[in-house]
Amino acid sequence: MCELLGMSANVPTDIRFSFTGLMQRGGRTGPHRDGWGITFYEDQGCRTIKDPAPCCDSPIAKLVQACPIKSRAVIGHIRQANRGPVALKNTHPFTREQWGRFWTFAHNGQLTDYQALQQSGKHLPVGDTDSETAFCWLLNELDRKYPHKPANMQAMFRYLGELCLQLQQFGIVNILLSDGDYLFSFCSNTLHWLTRRAPFGLARLIDEDVAIDFNQETTANDVVTVIATLPLTSNEQWHKMEAGYYLLFKNGECVGDSA
Amino acid sequence: MCELLGMSANVPTDIRFSFTGLMQRGGRTGPHRDGWGITFYEDQGCRTIKDPAPCCDSPIAKLVQACPIKSRAVIGHIRQANRGPVALKNTHPFTREQWGRFWTFAHNGQLTDYQALQQSGKHLPVGDTDSETAFCWLLNELDRKYPHKPANMQAMFRYLGELCLQLQQFGIVNILLSDGDYLFSFCSNTLHWLTRRAPFGLARLIDEDVAIDFNQETTANDVVTVIATLPLTSNEQWHKMEAGYYLLFKNGECVGDSA
Repeated sequence: MCELLGMSANVPTDIRFSFTGLMQRGGRTGPHRDGWGITFYEDQGCRTIKDPAPCCDSPIAKLVQACPIKSRAVIGHIRQANRGPVALKNTHPFTREQWGRFWTFAHNGQLTDYQALQQSGKHLPVGDTDSETAFCWLLNELDRKYPHKPANMQAMFRYLGELCLQLQQFGIVNILLSDGDYLFSFCSNTLHWLTRRAPFGLARLIDEDVAIDFNQETTANDVVTVIATLPLTSNEQWHKMEAGYYLLFKNGECVGDSA
Repeated sequence: MCELLGMSANVPTDIRFSFTGLMQRGGRTGPHRDGWGITFYEDQGCRTIKDPAPCCDSPIAKLVQACPIKSRAVIGHIRQANRGPVALKNTHPFTREQWGRFWTFAHNGQLTDYQALQQSGKHLPVGDTDSETAFCWLLNELDRKYPHKPANMQAMFRYLGELCLQLQQFGIVNILLSDGDYLFSFCSNTLHWLTRRAPFGLARLIDEDVAIDFNQETTANDVVTVIATLPLTSNEQWHKMEAGYYLLFKNGECVGDSA
């Protein structure tokens, strides 16, 4: 089991509050001691900060907390290793270029007997995880169907949702995927989300004695969606995603789903 | 013009001394104010820290200086923008997966009328630079000749050297490329290198009043090669690379060249 964190926003937004909650689960309030990583998009560019050391006492994680990096799309992950040893190459998120954009992927769950996914294609895994193998399989299948950038992105994401259902044959696949514009989430069994918009209020973390008044941090037009394996705050209404379904976000708004 | 920094070593080695010299050229002793980046390999995994802000006063660059990241292969770059605006997506080094390994690339120079390089292939540029276009062209040409991982890596690098000569038709291409094992360097007009090994001595930076006694930092078996656009230290013997030639390093030793 690992923990996922995703953000989609209509303005560059500081993720530090949510990251603070998540990183406590990286060895302190949770068992995920086997590395962590976070990818921030800035338009089409992205930066990934990752470390195979436990998140809760990583100096690099403390740096992320100290840096006011603002982004419209973020994917974060903390790892409890099951497939593949603890190493930088096995640390999520994973990024590949497809259709001239960087796609970033993180996975919660575990796959078994997934050799069928290790077929040939444009994208090959570098590390040893089931997760990176699944990511490359997804991109290779998308590339086969869409050798060039899809004109209809909604249709592509519907196809991606079908591929995720196929992946479920091999185990649990809670997935976050982004190209910096879209944030795609697929739920096998546990993903929760909420959208913050005006009127903003106070939010209180579950894992750390920290609260934030988003009124002070935002403008009236900000729309920010946060997705996490489990709710990060105690006093807000999180939606549980339905098993076997996907949700698609852009600029903080839900713009597509399995229905 | 940009500045390049490469390292190849037989043991995980701290690059901070050389990086300290380079970063001064990012806006203080040099004009390269348009971003900087550095990629550290840990076995097959790699981490890239980059920022479109000037290196000399970047808080993230100061973080790199504070973090004792040790690596056997490093590629660093500071940028003076000529093709493509200042943005994260245009900031070197660039990384792509090829043959199940991450390949990282940085370029000094400028290309003109390089539309012929923007042909189709597995790898597409994400940003707007001539450099990333050249990188994708190199990988696409390698992929065409070697659809699977080459059995003879020396032959692959010889072919890469020929491709670099073709690239020179479009302008200056001082290039560093690594997969974490090999460090390939091609010189159009300015690249310098040195290999440090026992007996180690004192090294004094040109760009900053800093000296280091490598005797204190190394063991007798350490072999570390550093490559830079221009020499970084004032009291060591740097070798100037010959124009139109490549050098290939592994574990700090030169293991191949154009000859």
